[in-house]
Amino acid sequence: MTKTIIKLTVRDVRFPTSLEQHGSDAMHTDPDYSVAYVVIETDQGMQGYGLTFTVGRGTEIVVCAVEALSALVVGKSLEEIVSDFRGFYRLLTSDGQMRWIGPEKGVIQLATAAVLNAVWDLWARSEGKPLWKLLVEMDPRKLISCIDFRYITDALTEEEALDILVKAQTGKQQRVDQMLKEGYPAYTTSCAWLGYSDQLLKQLCTDALNDGWTKFKVKVGADLKDDIRRCSLIRQMIGPHNTLMIDANQRWDVGEAITWVTRLAEYKPLWIEEPTSPDDILGHAAISKALAPLGIGVATGEQCHNRVMFKQFLQASALQFVQIDSCRLGSVNENLAVLLMAHKFKVPVCPHAGGVGLCELVQHLILFDYISVSASLDNRCVNMDIPDPGYSCEMLESSVQTHQYPQGQVWKKLQ
Amino acid sequence: MTKTIIKLTVRDVRFPTSLEQHGSDAMHTDPDYSVAYVVIETDQGMQGYGLTFTVGRGTEIVVCAVEALSALVVGKSLEEIVSDFRGFYRLLTSDGQMRWIGPEKGVIQLATAAVLNAVWDLWARSEGKPLWKLLVEMDPRKLISCIDFRYITDALTEEEALDILVKAQTGKQQRVDQMLKEGYPAYTTSCAWLGYSDQLLKQLCTDALNDGWTKFKVKVGADLKDDIRRCSLIRQMIGPHNTLMIDANQRWDVGEAITWVTRLAEYKPLWIEEPTSPDDILGHAAISKALAPLGIGVATGEQCHNRVMFKQFLQASALQFVQIDSCRLGSVNENLAVLLMAHKFKVPVCPHAGGVGLCELVQHLILFDYISVSASLDNRCVNMDIPDPGYSCEMLESSVQTHQYPQGQVWKKLQ
Repeated sequence: MTKTIIKLTVRDVRFPTSLEQHGSDAMHTDPDYSVAYVVIETDQGMQGYGLTFTVGRGTEIVVCAVEALSALVVGKSLEEIVSDFRGFYRLLTSDGQMRWIGPEKGVIQLATAAVLNAVWDLWARSEGKPLWKLLVEMDPRKLISCIDFRYITDALTEEEALDILVKAQTGKQQRVDQMLKEGYPAYTTSCAWLGYSDQLLKQLCTDALNDGWTKFKVKVGADLKDDIRRCSLIRQMIGPHNTLMIDANQRWDVGEAITWVTRLAEYKPLWIEEPTSPDDILGHAAISKALAPLGIGVATGEQCHNRVMFKQFLQASALQFVQIDSCRLGSVNENLAVLLMAHKFKVPVCPHAGGVGLCELVQHLILFDYISVSASLDNRCVNMDIPDPGYSCEMLESSVQTHQYPQGQVWKKLQ
Repeated sequence: MTKTIIKLTVRDVRFPTSLEQHGSDAMHTDPDYSVAYVVIETDQGMQGYGLTFTVGRGTEIVVCAVEALSALVVGKSLEEIVSDFRGFYRLLTSDGQMRWIGPEKGVIQLATAAVLNAVWDLWARSEGKPLWKLLVEMDPRKLISCIDFRYITDALTEEEALDILVKAQTGKQQRVDQMLKEGYPAYTTSCAWLGYSDQLLKQLCTDALNDGWTKFKVKVGADLKDDIRRCSLIRQMIGPHNTLMIDANQRWDVGEAITWVTRLAEYKPLWIEEPTSPDDILGHAAISKALAPLGIGVATGEQCHNRVMFKQFLQASALQFVQIDSCRLGSVNENLAVLLMAHKFKVPVCPHAGGVGLCELVQHLILFDYISVSASLDNRCVNMDIPDPGYSCEMLESSVQTHQYPQGQVWKKLQ
């Protein structure tokens, strides 16, 4: 019996995180962590949940875009969608009128992610599996048929992609068992948001060390003296053998990035994340080249909006760590394309997480990457637990209602 | 007395052009030419008009984004804005929450363009000048202060930009007189939209030749045999000395673009426009390199979303014709940045026009480019007339009302 999607709802859900500067960085100084939250429903009463992450104002625009896309989803059956998922992906991303306001970027791409995340969630639930398991157990040819290769065939053909997946079948069960037993290596950013005081930073770092964390990310880019002090402090606290990463959230121009990070080199960061504009492939390539002799890599991706951009970052050796985002790219479909390209170019994937839902979603993608694509943990890390059936997008309905913007209780109180 | 902006309205205005396939191309098969139309009003009753071009569905999302930006505009005085236009530009493009859903791309950038186009229109009207004249007569330092150089200083510094403008002061009045007398070279696309029959194409081409047109653009990319037939037909009709351009509207992958255009080389197109994804800088560079020996250049830009992208297209020699768009980039401010970079990299600018309002707007930019930046007409062309005060964004109120979507008379009839 087919499952026809008969309804799509989308809500603007915001958490007032800016009140205490959680999530603050050099460019996003007052984020209210938020989501456009999508629920799809079939004629049989089954539901799929999807979301895309935002940081407050503007979420209503993404909601409006999801509403515009819903006409392309409602009325389709799950079977129809997944029997030609590439075609369905292109239907959403290449609508003859709506592609003009993208294409495949910004608001419309975030909306596409939210909608398709819900479809993947529905698919995984209907199979009774967590998404990573659906992916890991899927026939490689079927997986490939979910990916739109338009604009990337000069870097990765369908045949090459299939070959990667087929080769990685060897040892797959062993890696599944290993992941279920040991989990995936992770890092924390929770200690050192830019708005935190040194005292809070020290305390959180001590707690994290006690909890067994070994990888620490520090926000930089607002003031060089502050950055030197904070990096020095953290490096002292974590010692020479733990890992430090730094993150500038796009604050610098290209030349400035090189000068600034060179000044922080003595604290031995593994990577500098988002040194400049997320659109600047050639800029990132120049920064990568300049920092390589210092042993510092470049990481980027949380605002890299599609597979065409990632393709070029890889072609230009413009990054040494690929930070896919489960809600910025066009859902699982486009993330699969990027994971496969990263593998071909031999660049490790360390997904962007944090925010609302991102940790929950990317754990599925990175598990799939390890088990079915890369088979390697070298230089890789993410936040994660082992998840339930679906794509882990479902939110507590009471939490959604309390935080719905602007009518939820939390926001009414703040007005 | 200061002019404070006390009101901003935005409307969704659509023209049912898809009914007769006007504007159809390989990727936008059924466009309804549309705009998000902005009117700002000062406390003294003066109005400024702005718009951004769209092709139908999705215009309501841009309208929603303009509404989100209006809080940053309403309450500000024109004097306050133009005394630090760079700061105001960054306020709109780098809002700590809204930049997440861009940054500087897609829906939010189109909305920024619409709002800032209205501000520039208001400024020009308040000075009683058409926009091109406001720009041409503006002190170079003041002009530079309107540009956000963030992320482009590795290609063009403020000092270099100023130097370009100062040097071009020589002979300026002569070029103004020349433009007022002779106008700017132009080309037409109206003959050969993809949905047109050969018969219609022949007839329109004959009419255009009789009207004195010398440059003709043909849409290609859907079917190679059709393209060969159509290009051959047009080349026969226009003869060897008139100019033919071809436009694929992003239809191809990189390798495919090279093969396909090579097959059309015998019809001697001046350029291939938008051969592949608008995001693919390295792809365009590869295509440029492959087609250079055939004497065919690459043109792109109508979906190039910001100065960071254009910077890289120029750095990578990925285009030979820069097609700025008055509504895709962040209004005049960002177009100024691109014009100056193009001049530094010695690449001619041939603006994207057509659509609703685009011809009217870019004429101001290209006049400024010739008079105050490039001082050259080599390899340059656009659609144009000589305009009235303002930025030529004002629409007939009766036309706006008739075409407002979905409540206007034209749309009610079609439902």
